[in-house]
Amino acid sequence: MSSDTITTPVHTVENGFSASRTDLLAIEEPLQFCLNGFPLSITMRSPGHDLDLATGFLFTEGIINDVGQILSMHCEPSQEGEDGSGKSADSVIIRLKPDVVLDPARFRRNFYTSSSCGVCGKIAMGAIEVHPSRKMRRSGPKFRAELIYRLPGLLRETQHVFDRTGGLHAAALFSANGNLLGLREDIGRHNAVDKLIGFALRDGTVPLEDSLILVSGRAGFELVQKSVMAAIPLLAAVGAPSSLAVEVAKRFDMTLIGFLRGQRFNIYSSNWRIE
Amino acid sequence: MSSDTITTPVHTVENGFSASRTDLLAIEEPLQFCLNGFPLSITMRSPGHDLDLATGFLFTEGIINDVGQILSMHCEPSQEGEDGSGKSADSVIIRLKPDVVLDPARFRRNFYTSSSCGVCGKIAMGAIEVHPSRKMRRSGPKFRAELIYRLPGLLRETQHVFDRTGGLHAAALFSANGNLLGLREDIGRHNAVDKLIGFALRDGTVPLEDSLILVSGRAGFELVQKSVMAAIPLLAAVGAPSSLAVEVAKRFDMTLIGFLRGQRFNIYSSNWRIE
Repeated sequence: MSSDTITTPVHTVENGFSASRTDLLAIEEPLQFCLNGFPLSITMRSPGHDLDLATGFLFTEGIINDVGQILSMHCEPSQEGEDGSGKSADSVIIRLKPDVVLDPARFRRNFYTSSSCGVCGKIAMGAIEVHPSRKMRRSGPKFRAELIYRLPGLLRETQHVFDRTGGLHAAALFSANGNLLGLREDIGRHNAVDKLIGFALRDGTVPLEDSLILVSGRAGFELVQKSVMAAIPLLAAVGAPSSLAVEVAKRFDMTLIGFLRGQRFNIYSSNWRIE
Repeated sequence: MSSDTITTPVHTVENGFSASRTDLLAIEEPLQFCLNGFPLSITMRSPGHDLDLATGFLFTEGIINDVGQILSMHCEPSQEGEDGSGKSADSVIIRLKPDVVLDPARFRRNFYTSSSCGVCGKIAMGAIEVHPSRKMRRSGPKFRAELIYRLPGLLRETQHVFDRTGGLHAAALFSANGNLLGLREDIGRHNAVDKLIGFALRDGTVPLEDSLILVSGRAGFELVQKSVMAAIPLLAAVGAPSSLAVEVAKRFDMTLIGFLRGQRFNIYSSNWRIE
C-alpha cells in the first residue's frame, strides 16, 4: 500500500449476499496555496506532488509566466491549533520574486470581493480567456493515428493507483513518437493536469510544443485552457469534450481528440496534425 | 436537439479510415452568482436550471439555511460590453432578506483575501467541516438491496443528455421505495447535486430524510458534504468513493454506497440502513 491509498472496512453486497472485507480508497485531502503571505486558493486533491500542483496551478491560471518568477516554495503539513480552534490544511507556501506584478484579473476564482457584479462579470470572462504562452506553431509535429490508438493502453500500464481504487483521474505527457514523458494522477482531473504541467515546468521542458497530453476522462474547458497555456498542440481524451473545450481548441489551433477507445477516435479541431 | 447540446463537425478516425460527420456536444458555459450586489462565485456549468443551481449552491455551502432567506433571485443572460470590453457571463442575481447574517467563514472558496495564511487555513478547514441541517435520524427509512441494484437502470432510462453526448454527470433523488423524485444533469458533478438539492429546496421537500441520492460517477468529499447538508440518509455512487467522503459519511451516520454495478455494491458506512 502506498501513501496515496488507505484501507477501509467495507460490506460487499452481491446477489443478496453480504460479506465483510477491506477495500482500498484513494486519499482526498485539502491543500491551501499561500502566495506572498496571503491565502490564494484551497483545493481538494490527492496528496503528493504538491509542489508540482502549486507550480502548475500558478502557471495555468496565468499568475506566473515562468517558473523563474518563484523565489521560494515549500510544503507545510496540517497542524492542530494550540487553542483547539481546529486543524489547518496542508499548505504550499509560495514567495514570488519582488518584481513580479500580480494581475488580479487573472485570479479568476479569487479576489472578486471588491468589484461590483457588472465589472466582475467582465473581469471573470476576461480571466477565463486563455493567455497562452504562444500561438501554436503550424510547423510543429504531426501525430500518427496508430500512435493515438495505443495511448490509453500505455496509460493503463503505468497508472497504478486507479487500478487499485478506481478513484483517480490521470494525465500523461507523451512525445510525438509515443514516449511517456510524465504521468500524474489525482482525485480532480484539473489537478492531474496541473501536476503534470507543473512537473514539466520544474523540469524546464515548457513550452511543450512537441508533446501531446492524454487525459483519462472527459475534456472540459479547463483542461483545454491549461494545456493551451503550456503550448501543448494535441489533447486526447478518453471521454467526451464539451462545447467550450472545442471552441477554445479551435481558437488556438490545438488538436482536440475525444472518445479515444480501441482503434477509434474523434477529431474536433485542427485535424491537419493527424496522419 | 435541445438547448443543452450543440452540433459540431467532427472527423472520425477508425481502423485507419477517416470520415466527416456531425456530433452532439454537451454545452459548457460560465455562470456567475451575484449576492447582494457582490460577485460570489463563477462556475462552469451546463445551462439550464440555473435558479436550482444557485439555490442549491447557497444552501449546500452554508450561506443560507432556508430557501425563505432569499428575497429575490433572477437570471441575467450574458451581454457584450458597450465599450468593447468583452462579454459578461450569464448571471444569477440574488438578494437575501435584510436580516440574513452572512458568515464569511462559510464562503470557503471565496472571501479569503483579508486574512493571513495561518488564520485562513483554520477558517478554510472550518468551512470544509459540514454544517448539516440536522443529525441523521436513526428512526429513518431502511432501503432494500434489491431496490439499490435497480437504481442505475432507472437513472439511465431518464438521463437523456448523457446518452447523446457522453458528456454529463447525473444526480437523482429517489424515495425509499424507488420512485424517482427528481433528476439533474450537468458538466460538473457537484453542479448536478446542487441543482438537484436546489430543486428540492424550491419544491419545499428539504430536509430529504426519507430519500436517497444516486450519482453517476465517483463520490468525493463535496458530494457527501452537500448531501449531508440536505439530510439525505443514503448516497449511492456508480463509481469509487474517496477517503474523505467515507470519513464524512461515517461522522454523520450517512450510508455511503460505491461501485453500484449490476447486482453488486459496496457499503462504506452505516450499513444498518440496508436490508
